[in-house]
Amino acid sequence: MNKTANQWFIGVDGGGSKCKAVVYSKQTGIVGEGLAGRANPLYGLEQAFDSINSSIFAAIKQADLSREQTKQAVVGMGLAGVNVPNYYQAISDWKHDFNAFYLTTDLDTACLGAHNGADGAVIISGTGSCGYAKVGEQSLLLGGHGYALGDQGSGAWLGKQGLTQVLLDLDGLGPKTSLTQAVLTELNLADQIAIVELLANAPSSEVAKLSKVVIEQARAGDAVADAIVQQGADYLSNLARKLFELNPSRFSMIGGVSEPITPWLGDDIKKQLQPCLSPPEMGAIFYAQRRAKLC
Amino acid sequence: MNKTANQWFIGVDGGGSKCKAVVYSKQTGIVGEGLAGRANPLYGLEQAFDSINSSIFAAIKQADLSREQTKQAVVGMGLAGVNVPNYYQAISDWKHDFNAFYLTTDLDTACLGAHNGADGAVIISGTGSCGYAKVGEQSLLLGGHGYALGDQGSGAWLGKQGLTQVLLDLDGLGPKTSLTQAVLTELNLADQIAIVELLANAPSSEVAKLSKVVIEQARAGDAVADAIVQQGADYLSNLARKLFELNPSRFSMIGGVSEPITPWLGDDIKKQLQPCLSPPEMGAIFYAQRRAKLC
Repeated sequence: MNKTANQWFIGVDGGGSKCKAVVYSKQTGIVGEGLAGRANPLYGLEQAFDSINSSIFAAIKQADLSREQTKQAVVGMGLAGVNVPNYYQAISDWKHDFNAFYLTTDLDTACLGAHNGADGAVIISGTGSCGYAKVGEQSLLLGGHGYALGDQGSGAWLGKQGLTQVLLDLDGLGPKTSLTQAVLTELNLADQIAIVELLANAPSSEVAKLSKVVIEQARAGDAVADAIVQQGADYLSNLARKLFELNPSRFSMIGGVSEPITPWLGDDIKKQLQPCLSPPEMGAIFYAQRRAKLC
Repeated sequence: MNKTANQWFIGVDGGGSKCKAVVYSKQTGIVGEGLAGRANPLYGLEQAFDSINSSIFAAIKQADLSREQTKQAVVGMGLAGVNVPNYYQAISDWKHDFNAFYLTTDLDTACLGAHNGADGAVIISGTGSCGYAKVGEQSLLLGGHGYALGDQGSGAWLGKQGLTQVLLDLDGLGPKTSLTQAVLTELNLADQIAIVELLANAPSSEVAKLSKVVIEQARAGDAVADAIVQQGADYLSNLARKLFELNPSRFSMIGGVSEPITPWLGDDIKKQLQPCLSPPEMGAIFYAQRRAKLC
């Protein structure tokens, strides 16, 4: 590989809702960004490639790279779904005109981003939840079993547990909770039938929006909401302790629920918690630099 | 209405998986049965009418009713989904050549069947769960909020709770349980990834099949399985107590989980529990008789 004065990198972070690409060099920093739709191959290979290509094209355009610069660029990509070997292979076969292309999971690049290219551990708690650590040649992936069976401590899980308690309360079969009025007000609904019609078969991303209400009511001292948030946080604390068995030098949390749930985490976890240093698309660039030995 | 010596009735019980019709008279008892596919209007009105018509046609054929007898028959029908007013109206508009047609919910006819046409209370615990009571002009429907948010103590709920504990155990994040080996053996799977691939997005009817394993392991003394079954049974006991507030003269339980979960119910509930006297399609006939005053 021709190590030039200004080696360009393209970092791509693709998941179930969007795909983001950035153009970067050590000398200039980030000079272009592009955004496109979802790029998880689970939802279709063609769509994934479309989103990848669109986001990269937009980023290159903004960066105003020449054709020659583009051809010499090195692409790093972290993608959801490529933990499944078939999808990893399919995306690896991507036809491109860049200098080189390196693919890994979105967890791996999120972790590399959080620790500015160094090893470490991360917990992601957004719509879903999971834990990941990478230390030397060892890596560990835990949780992330989805809305129906797992993802404890995630936004969708908090929302689901909240709704279950609201329905029990409205049926007179569970403890009274301030969640009931708060959820009915938030959704502008009248009763349990309306809740079931709206949310019994809703995607987890819709249910996750209610995590805000659950955490608010827990903060306000409602015992039912507090028990839900505490149970979710206890799971995340246990997840972190399991990741710490690999002795990662840094630990961060990512995703919309990470910050609001922090007060309920174990003190040992809070002590270890450090801020994310860079976003996942920069993690994808760190990954490409590692693989291409172009740090 | 012309009260003849041999008034024929057709009873129809239609739900999310099948539709059953029977032909009956007081003098002859049941002389014809017909079975067809699902008839819940939630899954499509056309399919619902197809299933209703097919099951009735088959039952009449087996009963060998004449055209004249068929025209004088009175139809009673209990259908899932018609608690939703729009669906009730749509099914009520059914074009038929019978003497009369009376429509109610599947819960109402299940309850009437269980108590041989008398008032009473029922709990249904099959794939899902709910409670229903009818005493005079009062009726009460509780629970039944679906796989994601409710249906505690049902087969799908027991299976889901079991799978959640198995995944926690396999991740090293929950208590050890004999459920883990039992579930992996039952499904012929190797690890948590295989479980998630197979069941994370499976329909509740698939997950409900695992309730058998959860109850077996609870019987065998596994603490995790026992806690799941006890929590489900406590919900059903509370549901029953709520129904008892209407002072029903009889109480029965219906559905595949009802019998195996009985040992975990409260003693006060077990004391009240009486056998189902007739199936739901006979309940539909009792309903037609009540409405037509042809008992």
